[in-house]
Amino acid sequence: MKPLRTALLFALVLGGLRADEGMWTFDNLPLKKMKAAYGFAPDQAWLDHVRLSALHFGGGSGSFVSADGLAITNHHVGRGWIQQISGPGDKDYLKLGFVAKTRAEEIKVPGMTLRTLMRMENITDQVNAAAKPGMDEAQASEARDQAAKRLSDDLTQRTGLSVNVIRLYQGGEVWLYAYKVHKDVRLVMAPEMGIAGFGGDADNFTYPRFDMDFALFRVYENDKPYRPEHFLSWQKEGLKTGDLTFVVGHPGSTQRLNTYAQMLYARDTALPLRLASLNKSRQDMLEYASRSPEHARQVRTRIYSLENGLKAMNGYLRGLKDADALAEIQKREQKLRAEVAQHPALQKEVGGSWERMEEALKTSAPLAKENAVVNAPSSGPLATALTLVRLIEEPLLPEAQRLKGYRTESERNALLEGLDRPSRNPNAELDHFLLVKSLDDIATLKADHPFRVAVLGTTAPEAAAQSFEASKVSDSAFRKALLEGGVKALHESTDPAILAARRMRPILGDLAHRQEAAQAILTEHGARIARARFQVQGKENYPDATLTLRLTYGPVSTYPANGTLIQPFTTFHGLMDRALAWGPEAQNGAWALPTRWQERKDRLDLTTPFNFAHSVDIIGGNSGSPVLNTKGQFAGVIFDGNIEMLPGNFYYDGKVNRGVSLDARAILECLVKIYEAPHLVNELTAQ
Amino acid sequence: MKPLRTALLFALVLGGLRADEGMWTFDNLPLKKMKAAYGFAPDQAWLDHVRLSALHFGGGSGSFVSADGLAITNHHVGRGWIQQISGPGDKDYLKLGFVAKTRAEEIKVPGMTLRTLMRMENITDQVNAAAKPGMDEAQASEARDQAAKRLSDDLTQRTGLSVNVIRLYQGGEVWLYAYKVHKDVRLVMAPEMGIAGFGGDADNFTYPRFDMDFALFRVYENDKPYRPEHFLSWQKEGLKTGDLTFVVGHPGSTQRLNTYAQMLYARDTALPLRLASLNKSRQDMLEYASRSPEHARQVRTRIYSLENGLKAMNGYLRGLKDADALAEIQKREQKLRAEVAQHPALQKEVGGSWERMEEALKTSAPLAKENAVVNAPSSGPLATALTLVRLIEEPLLPEAQRLKGYRTESERNALLEGLDRPSRNPNAELDHFLLVKSLDDIATLKADHPFRVAVLGTTAPEAAAQSFEASKVSDSAFRKALLEGGVKALHESTDPAILAARRMRPILGDLAHRQEAAQAILTEHGARIARARFQVQGKENYPDATLTLRLTYGPVSTYPANGTLIQPFTTFHGLMDRALAWGPEAQNGAWALPTRWQERKDRLDLTTPFNFAHSVDIIGGNSGSPVLNTKGQFAGVIFDGNIEMLPGNFYYDGKVNRGVSLDARAILECLVKIYEAPHLVNELTAQ
Repeated sequence: MKPLRTALLFALVLGGLRADEGMWTFDNLPLKKMKAAYGFAPDQAWLDHVRLSALHFGGGSGSFVSADGLAITNHHVGRGWIQQISGPGDKDYLKLGFVAKTRAEEIKVPGMTLRTLMRMENITDQVNAAAKPGMDEAQASEARDQAAKRLSDDLTQRTGLSVNVIRLYQGGEVWLYAYKVHKDVRLVMAPEMGIAGFGGDADNFTYPRFDMDFALFRVYENDKPYRPEHFLSWQKEGLKTGDLTFVVGHPGSTQRLNTYAQMLYARDTALPLRLASLNKSRQDMLEYASRSPEHARQVRTRIYSLENGLKAMNGYLRGLKDADALAEIQKREQKLRAEVAQHPALQKEVGGSWERMEEALKTSAPLAKENAVVNAPSSGPLATALTLVRLIEEPLLPEAQRLKGYRTESERNALLEGLDRPSRNPNAELDHFLLVKSLDDIATLKADHPFRVAVLGTTAPEAAAQSFEASKVSDSAFRKALLEGGVKALHESTDPAILAARRMRPILGDLAHRQEAAQAILTEHGARIARARFQVQGKENYPDATLTLRLTYGPVSTYPANGTLIQPFTTFHGLMDRALAWGPEAQNGAWALPTRWQERKDRLDLTTPFNFAHSVDIIGGNSGSPVLNTKGQFAGVIFDGNIEMLPGNFYYDGKVNRGVSLDARAILECLVKIYEAPHLVNELTAQ
Repeated sequence: MKPLRTALLFALVLGGLRADEGMWTFDNLPLKKMKAAYGFAPDQAWLDHVRLSALHFGGGSGSFVSADGLAITNHHVGRGWIQQISGPGDKDYLKLGFVAKTRAEEIKVPGMTLRTLMRMENITDQVNAAAKPGMDEAQASEARDQAAKRLSDDLTQRTGLSVNVIRLYQGGEVWLYAYKVHKDVRLVMAPEMGIAGFGGDADNFTYPRFDMDFALFRVYENDKPYRPEHFLSWQKEGLKTGDLTFVVGHPGSTQRLNTYAQMLYARDTALPLRLASLNKSRQDMLEYASRSPEHARQVRTRIYSLENGLKAMNGYLRGLKDADALAEIQKREQKLRAEVAQHPALQKEVGGSWERMEEALKTSAPLAKENAVVNAPSSGPLATALTLVRLIEEPLLPEAQRLKGYRTESERNALLEGLDRPSRNPNAELDHFLLVKSLDDIATLKADHPFRVAVLGTTAPEAAAQSFEASKVSDSAFRKALLEGGVKALHESTDPAILAARRMRPILGDLAHRQEAAQAILTEHGARIARARFQVQGKENYPDATLTLRLTYGPVSTYPANGTLIQPFTTFHGLMDRALAWGPEAQNGAWALPTRWQERKDRLDLTTPFNFAHSVDIIGGNSGSPVLNTKGQFAGVIFDGNIEMLPGNFYYDGKVNRGVSLDARAILECLVKIYEAPHLVNELTAQ
């Protein structure tokens, strides 16, 4: 689609987009702008090299950093996996850290997969062509989905790669991203959580920082270290203040191109509901953890994740409460709408989209509040029973009326696989605790509330939980028989969880359908607005984050905060300062140095650069991304942003938004002096 | 005046006054509240001891800390005096620091005086009795002033002390404070400005900090070290997080008891005008400093002081831009007014005062703007000439019509003394520069503006400056002859500065009279409101700061800022971290370690506590105040607040408002390891 560029709009875009803003896709990098600002822009070989060295690390990012498949990410990205292979006592690798002295000691992490982005194909035109004149919104949307699905299956067939359909610019572009998947991943080295996450929840999302937040894994193929075609060389010279850096990783989600009405919806409805839910879960987990130190160990990473989420959501909300920022967003939208109005064809297609979305959001708000109360269980016997009931009953409906996720054969297969997958960390006590907590919530509804009647009837939560736990739905033979028996077997079943799930299904289904209808309008008109923006602005803009590979760039730099200028780097001296200033007791030991660090700290060169702040544009999901210098070498690993980064979910403020990274020099210093792992240092610096 | 205490209002006051708020006078300490909160409250002997150990240090504070009259304050409080006795090269004690190895090497600072508060007398009833029924506002105000003056003269006569009339609670109480004055003060030790003010203007008014901000002076009497009756013993044990601290010093000025309308006036008129003026002066001084390093040295402390003022005023303004805080202030005022309305006698006297003040502020705003343009010179030949002209012409008017400051014999004597006093740092080039700058300002007025006509006529600033510099007003014989010659000699004089001053006088006088009239209303009704507040609240409240001795207390503690919890202490490790992180070049060397520190840093125990944050209620003028532990021992010296302290000019927010102090342990560590001054350490720790 050709941009209808006009002088007016070009000026508008340049004015709106600040220095170094942008999470850029690899097909559309602002190389000219970069070159003009920094006298350097990478060439295609540089870009291919770093893309093929980068790794998708679950919900985070990482990169290959040795010829033998060593992969680096953040400790907090690997935390769930380290927890998974940990146990009590001296197997508590989260608490004690872990160093494999030999490759034989490297610990395989079952189920852990990493991915490399091998190719990207723009299928926007083919997908858009599938929507024919005369189709309504839902039909057009469905036709586009089907076309994308066909193209995706085709690419999978041709390449053997794992292919994802990627919607950029709110659906303004559709791409296929094809990944090589690495399925044998082993833990090589992890620092203690006390130093990886030094400062705990208090320091999380802040700077200056003193966190050794990295971990090393190794990819294997056929039980041998994998030899990646591309991996990052370790830097020869350390970064200095003002040096240009690049960050290549997978920012998860931003909402910067959303409409003004969507911003207000997030501020007034979505984020407050999410915060209430996270707060409730955190309270529950703290209650469980208070039972004993072992209970605390079991839910440590859950609490970490909840607190992380709370701090992030609070930061997002703070961004939306900035009246000046909101006014600027509104002004930009008004300008875009005025420009659209000048083009009759565009105005016909998109002119009404903002109002349509505003109406859909008005419908969504009470549904979201209802959903916070009438909430489908996400785990446990009721969740399993609900999936079984839906697997049997949804296919009886015409496809368009079925619940989302229960429509195609592949969706059905994915659900069946999910039911058969064993739990990563089976824990009956925790499961029971969570089930009772969810039933407690339901018991706060009025006695005659249909959802309470459906789930609990007049039974108390504890008794109901015990009854559901007596269900057979976790037994695969039971599930097989039920699914084969179909509707008849289902209606005859007296299994307590199945009975409850049959009563819950219509209530949840009705709500889900109403939410889906509102969402379809938001999706369709969001895409129309995005296409209109394309027509007037071209691709000077970058798409919102979608957990796909992006590049962002900017110099190591200070920023104004806390009444002063914040220092661009920290050093190990600063770590000692903060540890001493608080003492080991404060905030449950948030600033306590791990034993090994206390014992060996005198070996450290305390002047070593530790963490640094740089003016890059990142968001959750970028964690573990490599930081590159202009030579494309590994200069550090990004693990956070400052507190001013969080409003970046909705808009970018280059004056204060900074990424926070662990310096490559600090990694080597601790590998040598603290972890006595010269073999890893040799491997990392071999090239 | 008896408090009409009511349950309602008692609750209101308790709700309004947060923990540890207050700059308390020594006659009215909240000992019960302190005891309840901390299990400790000082007794009368403790209080007398610290009061008599405390020193008024010019615009700041300090204390006696040895039997031989050693006095400690902040380096930045002593800075002007150190500058005064410094010179270029190795006499640049600001840059290089200074340590007297023997008492003979201690350097006398001409004109420097320190004061000890010996006694305090409440003269409120006598002063109020002087205002008789039937007097109008101005007459009542004048009668009270006269009564206070008589009582002050009487106390001076009886005691030989230097007596100040002190108005507390916006005039709700009037006191006599009687000081012993120390006139022979010598510099003993000062660190380099680079470590005393480490972080420069950027770190000023912020925390965490790493500043060795102290200096030692010694008081002499009859050329021998003075033996004060009271001095503070050095602490035996260092402070820990949570330990209760006391700060005894001279907070300069707060406006917390001002009316809501006065807060808005400060936000919308007074502070913006002040900021514009400070910015202009700073620009001028930077221009002068750019001429050469020696020029820069000459105006270093002026620039420091201007930047300090700018940062402070910006912080005050930020406080007043906090909508929630303003709403709270307005609510409290409405409650007070409602309570006043319930007491007919009070309502009759005070009910209309808020409106009267609001009107007076409406009159004041344009006058303040006029004053920013038509501004009397504060130094140089025009200032001297103006004083001479006024000394001759004002006495011709009835006393009530004379300009303030030109009414009584003692005011006249003070002015004459001022004219004869030699300049502390004579600098003809700087004087000329300042004169031309002030004339440049006047030259921006329209050509027919009366003030421009009066000062410049049609002459250009540079030529006018040279003509004024040819004036004889700096010659004491000329001044004597003119004053003796009276009106006749004045009218015959052709001295260019005298001629200009005669033209300026009526313009400035008219403006001053209009400002004074508005101010009289604010003073009178401010006092009435204060008296009303007394009647309903008693003395549970503390008066606004008035550069008189106060005590504030609170524990060493963290506070939430920058997204995290701020550490209660810093250490020398943190100093190294911040110096390394920035490097010596950043911000004109703001974070560069002085040479002596670079050379000797390895001698330091880097774990030594350096600065700390504590929950005390302070403001400018408290600088240099001793920090005491519960034993009344010297535990540190307060030198700043965090950035959140600045709104404390208008209201106190105990959640984040913190004082920032230099730890006594850091002082000893650097005296031993860096400054090689064991004789001072021995003297300080002798008892």
